[in-house]
Amino acid sequence: MCGIMGYIGCKEAAKIILDGLAKHEYRGYDSAGIAVIKGGEIQEIRTTGRVSVLAEKVAKANFTGELGIGHTRWATHGGVSERNAHPHISSDNRVVLVHNGIIENAREIRTDLEARGIAFHTETDTESAVQYLGYVYDGDPKGAIVKLTKRIRGAFALVIMFYDRPNEIWTARKGSPLVVGHAKGEGFCASDPTALLEYTRDVWFMDDDEIARITREGCEFYDFSGAPHEKKPMHLDWDAAMTNRGEYPHFMLKEIHEQPDVVAHTLLGRIAGEKVDLSHELAWTPEETEKWKKIHFVACGTSHYATAAAARIMETLGNFEIRTEVASEYRYRNIPIDEETLAIFVSQSGETADTLHAARLAKNRGARCLVITNVRGSTIHREVGEAIITPAGPEIGVAATKTFTAQITALTLLGMYLAKLRGELSPASERRLISALMDIPGKLATILSKEREIEALARDFADARGFFFIGRGLAYPPALEGALKLKEISYLHAEAYPAGEMKHGPIALLDKELPVVALVPKNGLWEKTVSNIEESMARRSPIIAIATESDEEIRHYTSHIIFTPETEPELYPFVAVIPLQLFAYYIARQRGCDIDMPRNLAKSVTVE
Amino acid sequence: MCGIMGYIGCKEAAKIILDGLAKHEYRGYDSAGIAVIKGGEIQEIRTTGRVSVLAEKVAKANFTGELGIGHTRWATHGGVSERNAHPHISSDNRVVLVHNGIIENAREIRTDLEARGIAFHTETDTESAVQYLGYVYDGDPKGAIVKLTKRIRGAFALVIMFYDRPNEIWTARKGSPLVVGHAKGEGFCASDPTALLEYTRDVWFMDDDEIARITREGCEFYDFSGAPHEKKPMHLDWDAAMTNRGEYPHFMLKEIHEQPDVVAHTLLGRIAGEKVDLSHELAWTPEETEKWKKIHFVACGTSHYATAAAARIMETLGNFEIRTEVASEYRYRNIPIDEETLAIFVSQSGETADTLHAARLAKNRGARCLVITNVRGSTIHREVGEAIITPAGPEIGVAATKTFTAQITALTLLGMYLAKLRGELSPASERRLISALMDIPGKLATILSKEREIEALARDFADARGFFFIGRGLAYPPALEGALKLKEISYLHAEAYPAGEMKHGPIALLDKELPVVALVPKNGLWEKTVSNIEESMARRSPIIAIATESDEEIRHYTSHIIFTPETEPELYPFVAVIPLQLFAYYIARQRGCDIDMPRNLAKSVTVE
Repeated sequence: MCGIMGYIGCKEAAKIILDGLAKHEYRGYDSAGIAVIKGGEIQEIRTTGRVSVLAEKVAKANFTGELGIGHTRWATHGGVSERNAHPHISSDNRVVLVHNGIIENAREIRTDLEARGIAFHTETDTESAVQYLGYVYDGDPKGAIVKLTKRIRGAFALVIMFYDRPNEIWTARKGSPLVVGHAKGEGFCASDPTALLEYTRDVWFMDDDEIARITREGCEFYDFSGAPHEKKPMHLDWDAAMTNRGEYPHFMLKEIHEQPDVVAHTLLGRIAGEKVDLSHELAWTPEETEKWKKIHFVACGTSHYATAAAARIMETLGNFEIRTEVASEYRYRNIPIDEETLAIFVSQSGETADTLHAARLAKNRGARCLVITNVRGSTIHREVGEAIITPAGPEIGVAATKTFTAQITALTLLGMYLAKLRGELSPASERRLISALMDIPGKLATILSKEREIEALARDFADARGFFFIGRGLAYPPALEGALKLKEISYLHAEAYPAGEMKHGPIALLDKELPVVALVPKNGLWEKTVSNIEESMARRSPIIAIATESDEEIRHYTSHIIFTPETEPELYPFVAVIPLQLFAYYIARQRGCDIDMPRNLAKSVTVE
Repeated sequence: MCGIMGYIGCKEAAKIILDGLAKHEYRGYDSAGIAVIKGGEIQEIRTTGRVSVLAEKVAKANFTGELGIGHTRWATHGGVSERNAHPHISSDNRVVLVHNGIIENAREIRTDLEARGIAFHTETDTESAVQYLGYVYDGDPKGAIVKLTKRIRGAFALVIMFYDRPNEIWTARKGSPLVVGHAKGEGFCASDPTALLEYTRDVWFMDDDEIARITREGCEFYDFSGAPHEKKPMHLDWDAAMTNRGEYPHFMLKEIHEQPDVVAHTLLGRIAGEKVDLSHELAWTPEETEKWKKIHFVACGTSHYATAAAARIMETLGNFEIRTEVASEYRYRNIPIDEETLAIFVSQSGETADTLHAARLAKNRGARCLVITNVRGSTIHREVGEAIITPAGPEIGVAATKTFTAQITALTLLGMYLAKLRGELSPASERRLISALMDIPGKLATILSKEREIEALARDFADARGFFFIGRGLAYPPALEGALKLKEISYLHAEAYPAGEMKHGPIALLDKELPVVALVPKNGLWEKTVSNIEESMARRSPIIAIATESDEEIRHYTSHIIFTPETEPELYPFVAVIPLQLFAYYIARQRGCDIDMPRNLAKSVTVE
């Protein structure tokens, strides 16, 4: 959802900003731009395409200056064009800014300013903000920004420079993430803290309704009325080395291979003597947990599918009333939320706008809230407070892989812990599941060792018109996630269905060019799923079966089989998802897609 | 799911069976066949393709006889071929039968019989039944059938003739529908009672675990141990004329146009003096309704989407804990179901196997059960007991249209009635909604009058690679149903998403050949949905907006607009779905698809 980088210091700003933008590219990459101030003049270069294209243009230009701002874009309002790329400059050339978010009343502001004779040059919502600033700026940056925050409605992280202010960069935030950092004689701001890791690990996460002034000497913070306040920095526990892809051709493949470790790390410190123990993270008492009559899982995209898996796992552990909701729907429906609700919000980045707003709603209604996120100190973490942090490390590939696995690990532990506090988890079940969870990393490694087989299978099916993914019960959520992966990186239409639901409509699409990926673990639903496989075969669909390694009978139905190791039935989603990630990866690679930065997508979705 | 017709009497059986099969064709039409007995010999003709192809073959053959059975097939086990078509005859030519359902242990029976030297000729599960019957038949039909019912596992409606029994047809049922009828000197059996309407309106719906012997004199009924029992006939309230499509080129179009009447009929007798009153159908007391802490909606396909709409409507009426579940998943998950649960099952045919099994489960767990169905006396109706019957009349088009509208009408009334009994519905809200519901038929007629506009729009988009349908809140369920219609009859990949969820993955697919149908009513979510439209436009997707007629602003975003009349916000699904049905219809027509009998599909889905 757009990435922002700002710098002020003693070095050449363009170089640092271009480096920073490259680290933000996963957030949007349909166009990019940069602006610096030198001698009272704003210089700017913009382009469609990647940051690398921008870097070439910058290299050819004489582009020096020690403060600057940059932007990599994921288009919302206005098509992808150089004109619509950021930074945007006011018509009077006095103000320049970059923006992440959406200004909802842009059309109205524009109409108003045009009536006052100000000419607009782009189709973006952002231009309304910069033109408004140019219109009200009278030498007092803070005063102008305060006015702006009162005029615009929507979500924004803004980084602003004024032509006559060579010693400061200004930022303002509401709803979109922004982090500010300071090292000796240098100030920074960025959408993603990983872009600052090589300069400093002590950062300030900006809060909503906050303005910052960044100078070479330090950072000052104000609220939207302009009043100053103190703010403590936070120490980042990630390492700059984590953001390199090493030997792997793509971050996505690297991250797929990290999953055995990620599961092991997520279990670490949360298991003691074959028992689950989350007491150091969750201050829950047994009495309290009795009070929660219902559990709401709220998330988007891959995180939503992780909750779908978790719900089915948890249902086997105790008598839980669970609903899993898409965050953008949860917010606006009239779902009863009250003090008897435990609401669990799952977001890799901790910045997902839809999820954040849903969390605020639930909190207001008196629900007990908890967040599962991969980013300590992210907005949702700070606002919700109670959290389980997944230690997956930075995920750079836009298509989530290792964070899905980390999330289902954390959620399984969470479900067990809750069932245990309520007295619903027998010691025998606890031992059985903990032991099975400890075996998961080894099982995932086994699947990863079949990478070449999966690659070969993907090569055979890379020309398919599309795919259906089917599964029943615990096999359905990984089917959803497998279809999503394929959509995201191969641009093929893949849709997941509960296997029993295909015959109620979608089966009409099946023919020999539309394969069906069937998740058919050897469990109580095997026969039913095989019946659905036969229905698909009767329509000549090629079948790719994800089957359990002991299942020889599946060979009667298809020769395209990926075998996964046996697990306890509840943990099936763990082993099912890995081959589907690899399958999507190799289909996309065969089709020549840009795997780490699929078109149209952005990783951390901070607009609604 | 396969259609069966059987006849014994004084006329030429083939003619009556072919007529009956034509009325069953909506249930499956990939192949068809017929068998008669004449002079102790079984004659048979089978073919791939439609009943009309079978009729041509029969016309050319010398095919006389006064008892016979016929079948039109929707393939489950075994591809579509003449060999796999029914009827199936035992290798010793003594028994012939047709079957609807699935025999789950077919492979095992086959292995067993092959070991005893019996040669199999097809890939079907059904052949195991007929070969087994041939193997055990010793001149006692009932005894052989009793043995068969003990040997086979799965779901079946079987109609059986024995070479040496010219005066009787036998049937057995477990899980698949079958209706038996008798007129003077003639006996009938069929999957669908509408096939019997022109001969008799007094019929016996067969129950599970029931065997029938049909003769020219009457019908006798037995249980699976062979013991006889009395059974009362039921009077059908449909009319044979309802099963003609009149001037319309397709049943689907006729049924789309029936919707204003269907809504009016569904309201009839359930509204009195601006108040909802379901007391003559539902014996509910206010005290009882207080006890139901949660509501489960369970259904498949279009009926499932009707419940998704109903859930969102009901949430606005009172403090309801509602979950909507796909029947094939509900059955096998560990969702808590208890005496505090009101479980509502929705099935057009009342024969949907998945839904029926889910209803049995909920009943066993102590839930209060209720069924919404279009077929009085259908299996689910008989088993659940408490019901609201939608008076939509027979729906012949395989893609459901008028029954969806009837279902949401009934469910809206149901929600209001429940809220009222609980004291949660204010008299003002009740009046407002009743008055708005009474206006719905007129509003639907207004939309239908725009048919030519919608047809023109469909013509422009008939070559699209696929479609996404997006909507938020009350606009999401009609988006789901619109996408399903398009999938079913045009074979295009259409998928619905909550509008806010597109950016979390599926947006990767968008480009100028993948249009987005956006449901964007003028309500509190208009701005948010328009933001999602802009995101799609930025990826060059053509936008088709389903907008509210007063909404001039939508013209800024697209020129492809279908305007729907304003309604009370809760009732938006009623007006949204009609243009989507017509859009799907005309896309399919433009693409030359067989609209009333789309490939691979069957109307009444009586297998799992």
